[in-house]
Parts: sequence; C-alpha cells; structure tokens
Amino acid sequence: MKEERFYRLLKEKKYVDIKKELSEMNSVDVAERLGELDPETRLLIFRTLPKDLAVEVFASFSREDQEEILNIITEQELNHILDEIFFDDMIDMIEEMPANIVNKILENSSVEERRLINQFLKYPVDSAGTIMTIEYVELRQEMTVAEALDHIKEIGLTKETIYTCYVTNNNRILEGIISLKTLVIENEDMKISELMEKDVIYVNTHDDQEKVANVFNRYRFLALPVVDNEHRLTGIITVDDVMDVMEQEATEDFQRMAAIEPVEDAYLDTGVFHLARKRFVWLLILMISAILTEGIINRFEETISKVVALIAFMPMLMDTGGNGGSQSSTLIIRGLALGEITLKDTWKVLWKEFRVSIVVGVSLAALNFLKNMYFDKVGFAVSITVSVTLIFTIMISKVVGGMLPLVAERLNMDPAMMAGPLITTIVDALALIVYFSMATVMLGI
Amino acid sequence: MKEERFYRLLKEKKYVDIKKELSEMNSVDVAERLGELDPETRLLIFRTLPKDLAVEVFASFSREDQEEILNIITEQELNHILDEIFFDDMIDMIEEMPANIVNKILENSSVEERRLINQFLKYPVDSAGTIMTIEYVELRQEMTVAEALDHIKEIGLTKETIYTCYVTNNNRILEGIISLKTLVIENEDMKISELMEKDVIYVNTHDDQEKVANVFNRYRFLALPVVDNEHRLTGIITVDDVMDVMEQEATEDFQRMAAIEPVEDAYLDTGVFHLARKRFVWLLILMISAILTEGIINRFEETISKVVALIAFMPMLMDTGGNGGSQSSTLIIRGLALGEITLKDTWKVLWKEFRVSIVVGVSLAALNFLKNMYFDKVGFAVSITVSVTLIFTIMISKVVGGMLPLVAERLNMDPAMMAGPLITTIVDALALIVYFSMATVMLGI
Repeated sequence: MKEERFYRLLKEKKYVDIKKELSEMNSVDVAERLGELDPETRLLIFRTLPKDLAVEVFASFSREDQEEILNIITEQELNHILDEIFFDDMIDMIEEMPANIVNKILENSSVEERRLINQFLKYPVDSAGTIMTIEYVELRQEMTVAEALDHIKEIGLTKETIYTCYVTNNNRILEGIISLKTLVIENEDMKISELMEKDVIYVNTHDDQEKVANVFNRYRFLALPVVDNEHRLTGIITVDDVMDVMEQEATEDFQRMAAIEPVEDAYLDTGVFHLARKRFVWLLILMISAILTEGIINRFEETISKVVALIAFMPMLMDTGGNGGSQSSTLIIRGLALGEITLKDTWKVLWKEFRVSIVVGVSLAALNFLKNMYFDKVGFAVSITVSVTLIFTIMISKVVGGMLPLVAERLNMDPAMMAGPLITTIVDALALIVYFSMATVMLGI
Repeated sequence: MKEERFYRLLKEKKYVDIKKELSEMNSVDVAERLGELDPETRLLIFRTLPKDLAVEVFASFSREDQEEILNIITEQELNHILDEIFFDDMIDMIEEMPANIVNKILENSSVEERRLINQFLKYPVDSAGTIMTIEYVELRQEMTVAEALDHIKEIGLTKETIYTCYVTNNNRILEGIISLKTLVIENEDMKISELMEKDVIYVNTHDDQEKVANVFNRYRFLALPVVDNEHRLTGIITVDDVMDVMEQEATEDFQRMAAIEPVEDAYLDTGVFHLARKRFVWLLILMISAILTEGIINRFEETISKVVALIAFMPMLMDTGGNGGSQSSTLIIRGLALGEITLKDTWKVLWKEFRVSIVVGVSLAALNFLKNMYFDKVGFAVSITVSVTLIFTIMISKVVGGMLPLVAERLNMDPAMMAGPLITTIVDALALIVYFSMATVMLGI
C-alpha cells in the first residue's frame, strides 16, 4: 500500500480497508508504517490486524513502540502475544523492558516458561545462549520419513524453522540432523537413522557470538544447533539472527577503530550526551598521550628554532605515518575478524608489512624529494632529511600497525582497538624523534 | 577426522579408509584438508570421493586448486562437475579462470548453457545478476499442494534451495511465492493459487548487491527472486551468497576508510607489490595535499619563530581534530551503509554533530587548559590559545566529518572515501589556520 493511500484511508477512517491492505503486506513494512503513527491510532489499527500478523508486527516494532503497546493492551492480548512470539524475541524484549513490564510478562508466564526465561537471562553477554531460540523440530532415530513429516505437519507452524530438524534421544542428547529437503525427497518408509547426518557441527551455549558467525560463514548453514556441556540440545541459532550478529560485530569494529566506545542504538536514536560520552574517553586518553610529542618537541626546541623550515613538513610526516599505520592495522584487524589471519601468521604479517613498507616508503620518499628540491626549493639537506624520515616513518608505522592488532589478539583484547587513532599517536612520537635526530645530524646543528 | 589421523592414513596409503572418513565430513572441511596436500595426492584422493561430495568439495576449493584440477581431469569428470555444480558457482569460476580453462568449460557446455553463461557474464559488476543462481523450483498456480510436492520430490535434488518456491505463468512472469513450510503443513488438495503470497518482494537483475543485502537484512528472507525489466523471473539469490556480499561490502568500507583501494583477495594471498600499489595511491594524494599545511605554516613563520612553544601543541591539536573527525564520519558512513541514516537526515546529523562537538570540545578544552596552566606551566596566553583552538578544531572536525559522507552520498560516490585520512588532511589545515591566527591575536605578535 502506498503511503499516500494509507494516510487517505486513515483520514477517512476506513479501517476495514486498511486492515485488508495491511494484511497483504510483509510484517516488517506494516511495523514501519504503524511506527509513524501516534500511539492511539497505532494501537487502534494494531488491534484490527489478524492475530498471527499482529504478533509478527509486534516483534518488528521498535522497543519504544513495544513498550507502549504492552502498557496498554489487555491481559488476554498480552497472553496471545506471549504464546505466539518466538522465544528469542521474547528474551531480547525482556532484557530491555522496564521492571513493571517484565513483571507483567512473568506473571503471565507458566512456571516452566519462567524457569526457561531465567536460564536464558543467565547466559554470558554475546554468547550463543543469548541468540538461540527454543522453537525447533525434534525427531527420533526410529521414526520413518512419513512419521517425521506427520509430526512436522502437526507442530511445524509454531517452530521458527522446520528446514533443519534435530534428532535427539530420550535424554535430549543431540544425535544427528536431517534437512526437510531430505525428508521431502526420500522414500516415506526410510528410517531417520539411515538418513540423518551424524557428523553434526554445533556450538556450545557459552561460545561467543563472533564464533557462531564464523561457523555460519564457513559452512553456509540455515541453522546451527546449540548444546550444553553434556551435549544436550538446548536451542538453535537461525541464519537471520546471525546476520544481525555479523552487522553488530562489524559496527563495533568500525566504532572501536575510530576510537568510539561501542554505541548500541542507531545514530539518530542516540542522545547528544550519550554520543559525546562514547567519544570523549578515547579523545581524552589520546589527547593526554600527546604529552609524549610535546616532550619530544620541547627537547628538540633548539634544533627547531634554528631551522624553522623543518616545521612545515611536520604535518605531512605525521599524517603519512598515521595513514600508513591505519592501512596496515585495518587489513590485519579485518583479516583477524574474518578468520583469514590467525596468530600463527604473525611472522608472515611482519615480513609482508616490512616489504610493503619499503616499496611504499621509498617510492613516496623519492617523489617527495623531487617535490622538495624543485617545487619547494628548500635545499638538499632539508629535502634529504624529510625523505629519509619519511621512509623510516612508513616502515615504523606499517610494522607497528601490522603488529599491534596481533599483540591485542594474543592478549585476548579486541584487535580493533589497535587502529588508526592509537597508532597515529605512537607513530607521531617515533616519527618526530627520527625527524629531529636526522635533522640535528644532517644540518649539523 | 583429526589431522594426525588423516596424515597417518595417508602415509600408510589407506585410501579406502580415508575415503570413508572424508565422506562423513562436511565438504568445506574436506576441501580445506585436501587444499593442504600436494597437487598429485590431492587429485588422487579427490577422485576417490563419492561423486556428489566431490562436486561440493570442488566448489569449496580455492581458485588455484580448482584451476589445477580442471587442468588435469578427464572430459568425463569435467562434464560431471559441470552438470552438478550450481550455476552461480560456475559463473564465479569462469570469471576468474584463464582462457584455456574457460574454453574447455564452454566446449563441454550445451548451446543453451553457453547462451546463459554469456547472459550472466554481461550483468554489471556487483549487480544482483552476478550473484543469482538459476537452480530454483518453479510451480504453477493451478497445481495442488500434492502435485507441487511430487514435482519437488522429482527435481528438488538439483535445486539450490527448495524452501522457497516460485509461482510463474507460461511467460515466466513471477506471480507469487510459497514456502515449503506451507506446502508441508497445508492440506494436500489446496491449490497453490489459494496459498501463495502475491505481494512478493523482489529485486531487479541490475540492482546493486548492496541493495540486495539491505533487502535481506530488512526482511530476513532465505531467498529472494530476481526479475528482469519485464518482471520475468530470471534467478534467485540465496541467503548464503548474501552473507558473502555483506562481508565483502563491510571489508571494502573498512579498506576505503583507511585509504586503501579495495583489495579483493585475502591478505595472506595478496602479493607485496599488489598490496603496495593499493596503498600507494591514496598515501601519495594525501602527501601531496599536505602542500596546504606547508603553505599555512610558511605563512605564519614569523608568529612561530617568535613563540616556539606553540609548536609543541601542534601534534595534539592536529591529532585530536583528526580523531574527532574520524569518529563522526565513521558513525555516519556506517549509518548510511546500514540504511539507518539517509540523505533526508542531513540537517539532523549537522545539528547533532554540532551539539556533540560543543560538549566534547568544551570538556576537552577545559581539561587541556588546566594541564597547560598547572602541569606544563606555559602561561595563560598560550594555554587559552591552545584551548580555544581545540574547541574550534573539534567543532570543525565533527561537522566536516559528519557532512562529507553525506555529500559523497548525494554525489553518488562511496561515502566510505570520506573517512579519517581525508578528513584529517582537511581538518589539519583548518586547525592550523585557527591556531596561528588565534596566536597572532592573543600573543599580540
């Protein structure tokens, strides 16, 4: 339904038409359309939606819209949502809702549900346990294909995915998996035990979500089983949730690499002071570490005051060093995140960065030398000082930029912290030392 | 199979055991294991694998391993691979293989296949057409559920996904979609026309892959239909290929933001000169733009030579400006990539960055003032000059950093180019002008 048409129908209070047209749309689009309305109208139209669609739309609402609706709806409506919403969406919701709403939800849950909710809330932040869901299809080895299909037909509607089914025994131990594709294509009389894959790839409830994303990337699964320490099946993770994780992890890396502490919400939804705080910490740390460069410059004050021409090249040297270091650290950080580079490649990285830095450094220095001699006309001594410093700066920056992320990885820190801003600060100091030392010697000060 | 066991069996030439154990493994793992072997042994073991697994393993090999195998295998083996490999994998392969192998592949293809290959190779780089596949299930409106399931049973094995089926008419016009879940759960006598979703979300063959990724992210599909300008179904894109796209797009952004031209292969597989060239261009451009800062410093030479103490704070001011600008541009670039920010938010971004910059700038400047007065003891005039410059620098850097990605977006350029390195160069120049102008006034030079 086009936006104009929607608002025209709304103005004319043609709610039956609106309901009919919204029912044809994807729930994500319906949620977006309703999200633009004022709370009363939103609730009014929300209540006209067919029940199944309503639950899907609810799951797609922003947290604020969800909160508003939960505050207003009747107990009966709440119960319907809680019955139908997927468990992982419910857990996400509970984690972010205020206490009064959480209580309302818990009061309307059965004892068993409350036990499960508590169990899920205890998994470590960003672990497989926090992104898994419990709505999966369980089969038994002794079932035939026909029995399995009947079972799926009966319970399938309430499951998040029926495309991968999980074969367990009476103790919920995971014994194999079988795809719906196999079930549909194979002979009805075959036994699950003959058809299932036994060499199952799985993750543990406590594994980090980044590891989960890497498993999906490697094997291209639609879903992945999650087991506890006793190898009991406790949940599954579906590919759509992993796409979220991939985005979230990349966003976190982008932010860390730009010296921002991870911001959870979308930019436009985040307040000014919150954004300012997330940026302030690292700017302050980096600003204070500039005491290093200040000290170096003060130590060489004599050299500088004698050849003021040297100052003009400071920004170029420092920026080129910073940029060269960023290039290296970015490639290594991304390689580590994608699993293309591991700690055992440390020496390979060092050797490669060393060679790249010589190629890049010497080429840039040669061009810079020509520019300084014939364009800026600053004389041979200054030109050669600048160019030699440039080579050293690029070598230092690329080797430091290539190594620091690996050091962080070895120390179990996030390699993304070892990016441009931090490396710039380090390389600035080293570049200035080389520059002024070279100048002192070359210019005979 | 554990690595040691594999190599022991290999040494003992127990190929039957190896075959048996590899057959139980996931094809991705088999490809990795075989990838470590010398070419002869690899081919030897590859030939023992069950045919279906062999094709999957082949698709998971690196391009080099694929090329080697294609060079050696018999025509019959080649034909088996070409028959079974998914069309999108074949296109990817053809795009990267040397001419002799491409010819070998084309010679062994039917006229119809050659026509399709040619059609696919003509789609624009990074368009939906280049990542789609043609192995999907087509159904007709008039079929019953039972007929559809029989049809799938017959042809399903050769399709990349059977979980979403596409309903078309005799002219291949896309009329609806239906999930295998619906087919399995619903009554056998129902007609497809009664069950299918008609409000289908699709992309066009020429749409950019980034758009495709955004559609998947928004709706959480497992597969998405691709239509041509006449709304004829020409292919589908599956979620696993989109995960590749998401990673590739994020990697490209990481690289562009660090002033690297996109590097296609993994870091460790890329040669030193190739890596150097990808980094050289932007370093050179940025190095040359430093002529700007050199000019500014030369113009203020008099001021500087009179108060050498000012020099010590140059790196801190420039770096803080660069970091502040990177923070802003990173948040905006990422927001644009995820579709959380669009061009119509330009004024919101400007206003938000302006306010954040005041909060951050004033706090940092205050702390810096205290440090300069009581730690460095450089006197009031210099301290206030540095702090006021710091506020201006952060304001400029955050506004410039927030705006440039949006400008790039409006000009249809990649916003990721407007990141740290470029912004640092611009902000450096502006910061120095403010700094030295302030100094000239404040210090009465």
